Amino acid sequence: MEKIAMLGGGSWATALTKILSENGNRVDWWLRAKDDVQHLLRTGHNPRYLSSILFDRQLVFPTTDLSDAVAEADWLVLAVPAAFVQPVLDKLGRDALRHKAGVVSAIKGMIPTRNVLVTDYVQERFRLPAAKLGVIAGPCHAEEVALEKQSYLTIGSPEAGLARGFCELLRCRYVQAHPAQDLDGIEYCAVMKNIIALTGGIAHGLGYGDNFLAVLVSNAVQEIGRFLRAISPQPRDLSASAYLGDLLVTAYSQFSRNRTFGSMIGRGYSVKSAQLEMNMVAEGYYAVKSIHELNRQLKVNMPITTAAYNILYERIAPAVELEILKEKLR
Amino acid sequence: MEKIAMLGGGSWATALTKILSENGNRVDWWLRAKDDVQHLLRTGHNPRYLSSILFDRQLVFPTTDLSDAVAEADWLVLAVPAAFVQPVLDKLGRDALRHKAGVVSAIKGMIPTRNVLVTDYVQERFRLPAAKLGVIAGPCHAEEVALEKQSYLTIGSPEAGLARGFCELLRCRYVQAHPAQDLDGIEYCAVMKNIIALTGGIAHGLGYGDNFLAVLVSNAVQEIGRFLRAISPQPRDLSASAYLGDLLVTAYSQFSRNRTFGSMIGRGYSVKSAQLEMNMVAEGYYAVKSIHELNRQLKVNMPITTAAYNILYERIAPAVELEILKEKLR
Repeated sequence: MEKIAMLGGGSWATALTKILSENGNRVDWWLRAKDDVQHLLRTGHNPRYLSSILFDRQLVFPTTDLSDAVAEADWLVLAVPAAFVQPVLDKLGRDALRHKAGVVSAIKGMIPTRNVLVTDYVQERFRLPAAKLGVIAGPCHAEEVALEKQSYLTIGSPEAGLARGFCELLRCRYVQAHPAQDLDGIEYCAVMKNIIALTGGIAHGLGYGDNFLAVLVSNAVQEIGRFLRAISPQPRDLSASAYLGDLLVTAYSQFSRNRTFGSMIGRGYSVKSAQLEMNMVAEGYYAVKSIHELNRQLKVNMPITTAAYNILYERIAPAVELEILKEKLR
Repeated sequence: MEKIAMLGGGSWATALTKILSENGNRVDWWLRAKDDVQHLLRTGHNPRYLSSILFDRQLVFPTTDLSDAVAEADWLVLAVPAAFVQPVLDKLGRDALRHKAGVVSAIKGMIPTRNVLVTDYVQERFRLPAAKLGVIAGPCHAEEVALEKQSYLTIGSPEAGLARGFCELLRCRYVQAHPAQDLDGIEYCAVMKNIIALTGGIAHGLGYGDNFLAVLVSNAVQEIGRFLRAISPQPRDLSASAYLGDLLVTAYSQFSRNRTFGSMIGRGYSVKSAQLEMNMVAEGYYAVKSIHELNRQLKVNMPITTAAYNILYERIAPAVELEILKEKLR
């Protein structure tokens, strides 16, 4: 039995807490909202996400006290939205994570203002060696974990022992977990897949069909490959589940926030009105900016990211930008 | 203006006839069913498939006379179901295709009893050089061509001039066409994608979800890659639209016959009752047998094809076989 601090109250944090606690581990679960913690303490259910899951109150300890949740944990799992992770982490002392077995990020986005990966920020802020860091990659809808449908996770870490150790905590009847070494590649791919889902949504909103989506996703694999070769060169097979699978489950999901957001943009909503209407933030919106800005130095050919950036940040009409993009795909 | 003989009355033949004729080419269109030819001659519409399309009767000449359709054509396009193509071709004299500019196959299957690619059979039967042969690859739902949604086609041929020439005939406002050299790889991939869609259907019928499908498709790219390296070794990027895109548009289509057929198998139908109920043949059913038999010599690790073969031809229960398969994926 290991002690895990889970940070975040969303659907992915909820699904991971289910897996980890049902495997007999103790989870100290930090949620921001006091009401949600009280509901969890009273009923054993998260009122907001995957609320059918009943948590074992001998193993799951919801709290709003961040330091308390982290203090005794062997492992820290980060599952707050990328846009909010930095202020949460900055509340912890610089030495707070020094003696952890590992810090594993389940976040699919970058630190917004800094354009760095979440694990890079953790490493710098808490002065940890890279061998203490890991990332959890899908292809995994949290909703299907709640339904105990067969799912596959990959734990990426430069330290094979850490990856194998965390895989052990996750494996169960309906979850297979496999270790991998390519932390940076997996984490960047998880960020970039949201850009592709968002752009697929824009195309859908403009009336493009499944033929175009299949070509967009095929070209996306190549675009992600070019970017990864420039920013983190090492051999990797992008058809592995942690890359292609994760991209597919997002790009082909009808329920993806990124796709829905993109679809509204394609149908003519402004960014602001789409965000207001959805009452939430599509992570791909920030990912586009981070990756585009990183690429100013790298100058990789990235037609899909460029199109999304021009639409979202340069106010180019979606129909015009997609006309340009479609000529660049093949 | 080129003269094209189109063989086949299905949706793909209908969509290709639309593109080719709207580009100003003459299409002599052989259909097996006399009723359909008469309806086409009378109304300009194919009564069975994509019946909204109105064909230009100055350019499109439907006929049930095979020799007549082929006699004057510059190009022959094959778009009959794989299961029936051999008896159709065998009606033509051995020298009937000698002076054609090219024979292009749009068929996504193999000659059943012989386990050879359609283009290999054509080459042997009509004693043609490989440089006269080509293949049309999607990702392309015929229904979206009818709706003039942006689509991308790849023409694969060892002869670059042939591929470029046929691309010219296809390009229009809503179709991009690109040449490629890897005829065999593209043709095998088009066959194997139906096995994947069928197996995805079986999994769906058994209650597996989108997480599993994404992992299945990722592993499928690797399985197809291993098979192609064994049977036709040459450098190729499987993330190109002609391979991955074609796989995606089929595996993620709700309307794919292969997926529907697989889904019925997964839900407990026998092969015979599924075929009776659907009143049509899923090409993947034959593809599984051909690829499995070819692999007896090659001995490539093909867990997905093996699972589908065991279910369809060895009567292993789908649930049992998928339990075995799921342990082999990652």
